[in-house]
Amino acid sequence: MTELQNMSDSALRAFHDRVCEEFDAFRDRGLALDMTRGKPSTAQLDLSNALLRLPDNVDYHLADGSDARNYGGGVHGIPEARELFSEVLGAPVTQIIIGGNSSLALMHDCIVYALLTEVPGGATPWNDVKGAKFICPVPGYDRHFAICEDFGIEMVTVGMTGEGPDMDEVERLVADPLVKGMWCVPKYSNPTGETYSDDTIRRLASMKAGAPDFRLFWDNAYALHNLTEPRREILNILGETEAAGNPDRAFVFGSTSKITFGGGGLALFASSPANVDWLTARMQKCTIGPDKLNQLRHVRYLKDVAGLDQLMDRHRSLIAPKFEAIYEAFDKHLSGRGAAEWKTPEGGYFISVDVPDGCAEKVIQLCGDAGVTLTPAGSTYPYGHDPHDRNIRVAPTYPDIADVQLAGEGLSLAVLVTVSESLLAARTTEKTT
Amino acid sequence: MTELQNMSDSALRAFHDRVCEEFDAFRDRGLALDMTRGKPSTAQLDLSNALLRLPDNVDYHLADGSDARNYGGGVHGIPEARELFSEVLGAPVTQIIIGGNSSLALMHDCIVYALLTEVPGGATPWNDVKGAKFICPVPGYDRHFAICEDFGIEMVTVGMTGEGPDMDEVERLVADPLVKGMWCVPKYSNPTGETYSDDTIRRLASMKAGAPDFRLFWDNAYALHNLTEPRREILNILGETEAAGNPDRAFVFGSTSKITFGGGGLALFASSPANVDWLTARMQKCTIGPDKLNQLRHVRYLKDVAGLDQLMDRHRSLIAPKFEAIYEAFDKHLSGRGAAEWKTPEGGYFISVDVPDGCAEKVIQLCGDAGVTLTPAGSTYPYGHDPHDRNIRVAPTYPDIADVQLAGEGLSLAVLVTVSESLLAARTTEKTT
Repeated sequence: MTELQNMSDSALRAFHDRVCEEFDAFRDRGLALDMTRGKPSTAQLDLSNALLRLPDNVDYHLADGSDARNYGGGVHGIPEARELFSEVLGAPVTQIIIGGNSSLALMHDCIVYALLTEVPGGATPWNDVKGAKFICPVPGYDRHFAICEDFGIEMVTVGMTGEGPDMDEVERLVADPLVKGMWCVPKYSNPTGETYSDDTIRRLASMKAGAPDFRLFWDNAYALHNLTEPRREILNILGETEAAGNPDRAFVFGSTSKITFGGGGLALFASSPANVDWLTARMQKCTIGPDKLNQLRHVRYLKDVAGLDQLMDRHRSLIAPKFEAIYEAFDKHLSGRGAAEWKTPEGGYFISVDVPDGCAEKVIQLCGDAGVTLTPAGSTYPYGHDPHDRNIRVAPTYPDIADVQLAGEGLSLAVLVTVSESLLAARTTEKTT
Repeated sequence: MTELQNMSDSALRAFHDRVCEEFDAFRDRGLALDMTRGKPSTAQLDLSNALLRLPDNVDYHLADGSDARNYGGGVHGIPEARELFSEVLGAPVTQIIIGGNSSLALMHDCIVYALLTEVPGGATPWNDVKGAKFICPVPGYDRHFAICEDFGIEMVTVGMTGEGPDMDEVERLVADPLVKGMWCVPKYSNPTGETYSDDTIRRLASMKAGAPDFRLFWDNAYALHNLTEPRREILNILGETEAAGNPDRAFVFGSTSKITFGGGGLALFASSPANVDWLTARMQKCTIGPDKLNQLRHVRYLKDVAGLDQLMDRHRSLIAPKFEAIYEAFDKHLSGRGAAEWKTPEGGYFISVDVPDGCAEKVIQLCGDAGVTLTPAGSTYPYGHDPHDRNIRVAPTYPDIADVQLAGEGLSLAVLVTVSESLLAARTTEKTT
């Protein structure tokens, strides 16, 4: 296909007219497709329905004989759940905390506690530091950025390279003692889908940080969520930080919300002994303990790492075709047009699409007009502002595959309308100036 | 019976020798009875076993048609749970938040958010105020005090009068603009069991606070937990504060941990529209939402307020005899001895016992030696320090009734040993000086 940039004025105008017609026809279908969030589909949730009947009436005791229905057992979570996720999180059982239903809440709480009471290695709470900053690889996860924004933590962005964040830039930024943290989604990153390379992880573990209490917020949300086989394995950040002499550098987070039930799963945490002690000391003031029944339910249902792997295979078989459906639409409409670049991630929940500068907001608005709701423009950047207005996050997991196909169609047409229009406008401006 | 104080030296010595012998015999039985925490018993937990099978496989949709297994629906909790607890909390559905499994965590979060972002009516976050204080009625709940201690909030104590806190003292203290909050357990208070009178509640609602962002932390943990009939009703603090022109003064908390499962229940919150907006704005940064499945489970099981009342009646029939067992032991051993004063609360989970000044720690230690574990001395006071060393909290709900009887026996003997010994020592000192 011809790149739009290389078309003659008249060809481009004809092309624009044609895709406008196609888009109008699409819009007139009056669809309502929600592609905003990385939500599991109903079929995915059905995989874990057995959870709903667990633990059964006569079997609510933990392996240690205690009653999961009552208070007690502390804030670390039940031993069998800590055991189950120890391998997934890459830390010994004693360094694992199984929390409530939200890993985001655990991340939020770690920041809140760090604002109010110094983390190991720190001399003061972060709140006492004027101008505390976080490094934010972009595009990234809007809910990470929202926590920083809410508490006035300045966000400094670094680009993604395909192997994780631009490490030269990260190493330059982290020398600043005001930089207290960095958001990382190391595997199948949200939204680009890329996975941090060994070199990236080693550099993050060993780089010289200006702040002795600098922390990597290592949100390994998609640790098991591969779309292709075999699953990518990444270096164990806790092993690398320890080897590099920075044992307390990483807070590792995980979640089963996209394994069992969205918002009805378990939040996971792993870190160094000092960090685990710090967090549990804070948690002990906050709560008597997590919902042990839901933890027991999960252990009984998932059983072991093999059980987790089998379940994730079933998720993959439901999700992967939806990603393929988007790629098919993109290939059909956008390939060779120079109108968009997109990732084909090996895992995760998103497809990241870059359109020419200044076009993302318009594309998303057009899609909205046609009943295809996408994550708002700018969401993947701090403060909701994409400086180039070019990134679009597509979340294909939730709708039925027929709807995903339609959404891919609509999005492709919206891209073509917007980009051809933008090119035409630029040519007009060129000629009149 | 003769008061110990009025016995002759020889009679007191003989009495002391006798109770020491009895206590030694008790200790030699090698019991292990845990009376430390207000935990439901196994029989109480069995009442709600039906919860463990809810929601069943085919019935996980909310009334609005949404799927409780997936993300979505916001941070307020599911509509049917908000509806169910609206009457209990005394606020319209729109002013109710149903949280996770821990009301303590909700209280903790309210303090954390108030430390970091100003509450409605406040000019600055509490953390920016040097020397922020909380009023703490004593004796009170150790976990309330621990939150303040953790964040360096100074605690100023006021005594309890039998109708709630000493309001003359509260009104004097609250004029200080550094006083930002006050802990209140208004019904069947922990540990004294007393219930705030209408006059107390009206004065709390209408008193002039020095800080415009002063908050009552109204932990109505025992709202439905009566031991006698009929249940005491207290004034609705939200109605009273609104009528007094202080609509944003109270954060109201509740919990089903002592209704369904300890740590496996629901945390409840009610307040003014401004406070609810403030809290939900914070929560939206923290989490995608609570565990809706556990909320749905609770709604299906409890059904309505009548269902709640029936369940609480069944709890009462299990708990009340345990309180009676303690009173019987106290009546048998301690009545008329002048060695202890105890409450006979109309509800709640505790019996508060006052021994002569300087005796509580010794009594609790002796009990521990004899296998009757009580909440550590001082726990009911801020910083774990009972200035008179006289308050003992007895939590009779968890053990079997036979064990509660034994524990009452052991505690009574430990009191008699300690107090007679203390009197003898005082008489010796008198004579030698």
